[in-house]
Amino acid sequence: MSTEASRTEPKRINTPATNGDRLWNDLVTTARFGGTDKGGVTRLTLTEEDRQVRDWFVGECRALGCSVEVDGIGNIFATYPGEDMALPTIAVGSHLDTQPQGGRFDGILGVLAGVEILRTLKETSTRLRHPLTVVNWTNEEGSRFSPAMLGSGVFAGALSLDAAHALSDREGVPVGAALDAIGYRGSAAVEPTALAAYVELHIEQGPLLEASATEIGVVTGIQGLRWFDVVITGTEAHAGSTPMAQRDDALVAAAEIVLAVRDIARENTPGVGTVGFVEVGPNSRNVVPGSVRLQIDMRHPSEAGLDRMETALQDAVRKAGARAGLMRVWSKAPVVFDPSIVHAVRASAEALGYSATDAVSGAGHDAAHIATITPTAMIFVPSKEGLSHNEAEYTAPEECARGAEVLFQTILELDRR
Amino acid sequence: MSTEASRTEPKRINTPATNGDRLWNDLVTTARFGGTDKGGVTRLTLTEEDRQVRDWFVGECRALGCSVEVDGIGNIFATYPGEDMALPTIAVGSHLDTQPQGGRFDGILGVLAGVEILRTLKETSTRLRHPLTVVNWTNEEGSRFSPAMLGSGVFAGALSLDAAHALSDREGVPVGAALDAIGYRGSAAVEPTALAAYVELHIEQGPLLEASATEIGVVTGIQGLRWFDVVITGTEAHAGSTPMAQRDDALVAAAEIVLAVRDIARENTPGVGTVGFVEVGPNSRNVVPGSVRLQIDMRHPSEAGLDRMETALQDAVRKAGARAGLMRVWSKAPVVFDPSIVHAVRASAEALGYSATDAVSGAGHDAAHIATITPTAMIFVPSKEGLSHNEAEYTAPEECARGAEVLFQTILELDRR
Repeated sequence: MSTEASRTEPKRINTPATNGDRLWNDLVTTARFGGTDKGGVTRLTLTEEDRQVRDWFVGECRALGCSVEVDGIGNIFATYPGEDMALPTIAVGSHLDTQPQGGRFDGILGVLAGVEILRTLKETSTRLRHPLTVVNWTNEEGSRFSPAMLGSGVFAGALSLDAAHALSDREGVPVGAALDAIGYRGSAAVEPTALAAYVELHIEQGPLLEASATEIGVVTGIQGLRWFDVVITGTEAHAGSTPMAQRDDALVAAAEIVLAVRDIARENTPGVGTVGFVEVGPNSRNVVPGSVRLQIDMRHPSEAGLDRMETALQDAVRKAGARAGLMRVWSKAPVVFDPSIVHAVRASAEALGYSATDAVSGAGHDAAHIATITPTAMIFVPSKEGLSHNEAEYTAPEECARGAEVLFQTILELDRR
Repeated sequence: MSTEASRTEPKRINTPATNGDRLWNDLVTTARFGGTDKGGVTRLTLTEEDRQVRDWFVGECRALGCSVEVDGIGNIFATYPGEDMALPTIAVGSHLDTQPQGGRFDGILGVLAGVEILRTLKETSTRLRHPLTVVNWTNEEGSRFSPAMLGSGVFAGALSLDAAHALSDREGVPVGAALDAIGYRGSAAVEPTALAAYVELHIEQGPLLEASATEIGVVTGIQGLRWFDVVITGTEAHAGSTPMAQRDDALVAAAEIVLAVRDIARENTPGVGTVGFVEVGPNSRNVVPGSVRLQIDMRHPSEAGLDRMETALQDAVRKAGARAGLMRVWSKAPVVFDPSIVHAVRASAEALGYSATDAVSGAGHDAAHIATITPTAMIFVPSKEGLSHNEAEYTAPEECARGAEVLFQTILELDRR
């Protein structure tokens, strides 16, 4: 797709343009902090590698004329002055931490595109009405400290700073001590109300854009999610001497539920449903299964969609016949992004002449927290084969460049409001 | 069922009748050799407990006027003289060994019913035309030495005596040494051609007779069996960001195969089909399964039935869509018992006024080997809840008594031929 797509000439609007080569160069440069032999990055939050990339980010932003603030959870806010410093800031960003053996793009692209936009503003002496803030959120990945999206969560008030500081990694190191160790426990009291809007550019981490040869995903929200456990009790029996009519086979009931989950998701597009885990007892070839445990993951962009899917799942479990119990074990409400910010993203992609499609994020992002306090939207660019959390994660230079251009146009659009 | 069935008065034919109380008493007596706290029996082949029950059996038979021979694999042949000693012997029997924590009936009933028939003949001074031999086959269970059905296998020539002697248990004790240790390595050269017929009374080890409130199973053969492995390769993918239309879910394909196995068996009654083992990779709730391994057990009384089932399974695996491989890993041909012996069993049950139904054995028995060299059939009596290889195995006294009566009538019928 990238080859074909690279022929698309962006329509030049009467504004300065970001520089895709310079952005790619930054991606290559920062991939060295924690870079792996296989071309990926291992840069867990608040480690020495994370300090290196943070120092690089702070240095670049300061050199471009930004003021840099760090809050108590280590979130970094690099703010480029606007003409009217009384206006709230337009914020963009994402995260610089990675999974172990992670990729070079997940999160990083959103921060570096912000840096590239700062460079473009500086280079062309362009002054926005609003201040522009590029943010690096602490511990989006959650690989070292759980929960994920910690920095944006604290910023949005989803959990307290004290609670966040007390979280420990597997070695028993608390977040607070880890912040001190790399010198990123700040004291800035950045107020959520200081944000006019938040826009996060991110790789899709899914195959949809690539498969449909679409350049830009206009992200309208983040799917909600419900996790279910199903325990099916049948009757363990001899596979040779138990006639079919007298069986109470827990696996046959489970198979019907697996297919029902697929059908329920298909009937509730764009919802998805997955049975990812199966445990059969006694799990022996010549014994009719007496018990099966299933773990189910269902997602949908709307609460109403999730409700429909859950009701249909309850019916399917009832119909499966064996003694089956359904339990909802976790849920996360859908996030619906601000329509006016989503509109600005869509209009910007169109103005640039890029193919664009509305998309709903399957994975969680810092934007989910920020959306609870600020008008928010996201921009997706394609992920090769949908791969992410993987050293083979890849988004081509021209795809990254398009994402940065749409982000810049969106900022310009929001700045006019 | 036993309460209702016990009201059936056997039609008295002009022959002596076996004594159900005496048979039950023998079952209780022999259950002490290796008896467990929970009312079961642990009497592995060629152990001290096996020696005790063998000695009891030999002693009873000798006291009844039998000649007792032991062959090189420890099979015991107790022969009651007939009027015409030139005629081949009518053989009945089964095995006295059990599974660990096994039951009091599996195998034992077939031997003790033979002993009870000897008692009846002696008590009533009845002399048959043919000699009557009650056999105890060595190591039917296969729990200590593999393969199972060893004694009958050696007798039928399925494996050599030398090969059988060389088999070792988990402690490294060979069969030959184990036979010597309990004094049951005999030297009798019992010729298979010496048998006129073989009839084995056994508990059903399945739920069919109990469920249909039928007193006697006229066993027409032993199911053949084919074992298959199916490996399904899909594409591992993120459960949140992979749309349903773009999935290649190995578990969905596996679920279709599980249901197909059920349907194939239903369409090929009295065949049975079971998926007893499932292994999912990576088996994580929020990952679309990339691989599934299934183990399948299919059984049918006829080779043609097995062929139809295998062909249908091949179709189902093809239809399941994902990259799936089907491999037959083991097979056992069906055993079809001699129609004239089966007819004698059926006629005997009818003559006694017992409800009877044709049945096919789901499990293997010594009769499977003997059927390759001698006209053979089996008689089943109900197993409570189909339980076997289990301390809770149970067949009521009146059900055991009916089985012995049908066995005796069958011998009398065969003796008239």
